[in-house]
Amino acid sequence: MKYFEDIQVGDIVMTGRHTFDADEIKSFARRFDPQLFHLDEEAAAKSHFGALCASGWHTAAAWMRLMVDQRRAEQDAMRTRGEPVAASGPALGFNDLKWLKPVYVGDTVDYKSVVTEARLSNSRPCFGLMTILTTGVNQNGVPVISFASTTFVERRPEKM
Amino acid sequence: MKYFEDIQVGDIVMTGRHTFDADEIKSFARRFDPQLFHLDEEAAAKSHFGALCASGWHTAAAWMRLMVDQRRAEQDAMRTRGEPVAASGPALGFNDLKWLKPVYVGDTVDYKSVVTEARLSNSRPCFGLMTILTTGVNQNGVPVISFASTTFVERRPEKM
Repeated sequence: MKYFEDIQVGDIVMTGRHTFDADEIKSFARRFDPQLFHLDEEAAAKSHFGALCASGWHTAAAWMRLMVDQRRAEQDAMRTRGEPVAASGPALGFNDLKWLKPVYVGDTVDYKSVVTEARLSNSRPCFGLMTILTTGVNQNGVPVISFASTTFVERRPEKM
Repeated sequence: MKYFEDIQVGDIVMTGRHTFDADEIKSFARRFDPQLFHLDEEAAAKSHFGALCASGWHTAAAWMRLMVDQRRAEQDAMRTRGEPVAASGPALGFNDLKWLKPVYVGDTVDYKSVVTEARLSNSRPCFGLMTILTTGVNQNGVPVISFASTTFVERRPEKM
């Protein structure tokens, strides 16, 4: 993680992409969202979705996984270069989480975030707050999910 | 699902409760949120959370599962009584998703929703839009998650 002072509004983070296969869609749905259009091809074909598609929570959780992997890779690279790595605090929450279009079997969703706000934290002086807007776009260029989220990011110690 | 006309602002839905055990917390985290405080007791004890705790996405997905089960049980009961069952359309999305406090191993979260808005849909005349505010409260009465969500609900055919 970069320090708060090294993050600028407008910065873009490419988080990665994920392809949703039928087994994974059904496995997530069995556990967390057992609606027929997430579980069974034939029933899904008759639903308003028209075909088997991923739970919206699955599409969101897949982003979380990519984000953790991407942040870890960035931290490893920074440590390899001998650079200090900032701590990131917990996420405060999410806003405007929208499932814009269904994610069907075989769709690949590419997740990208843009920093929309950066400000100091009143409650935790060692941290700033970064707000990002994340969008997931499928292989046809169609946005399927979007949300805003705010996270604590450590300030550079010498700036305090 | 009740018809739109049978839903009133202020209605409360008790969705159910879920107890988070360590195996399930780790299993979700391995797949979707592999941060150490969701995976390993010792590492979690040294983190800002102080103990192993569930991914925020896990706490949200557990609600989704309870909601699907609860809605299905309600529909079965309505069919048994010979009542017509309204269709519910897809969720439009979520707003103000907040993880207020950590959910630790053994915590039981009780999810409750209140209808905060009900209005007709401009785009789909057969449906109304219902907005609910959901809160998950742990066994000590402490809110751990809250969010607002908006869903399409079918209108009673004879009212159209």
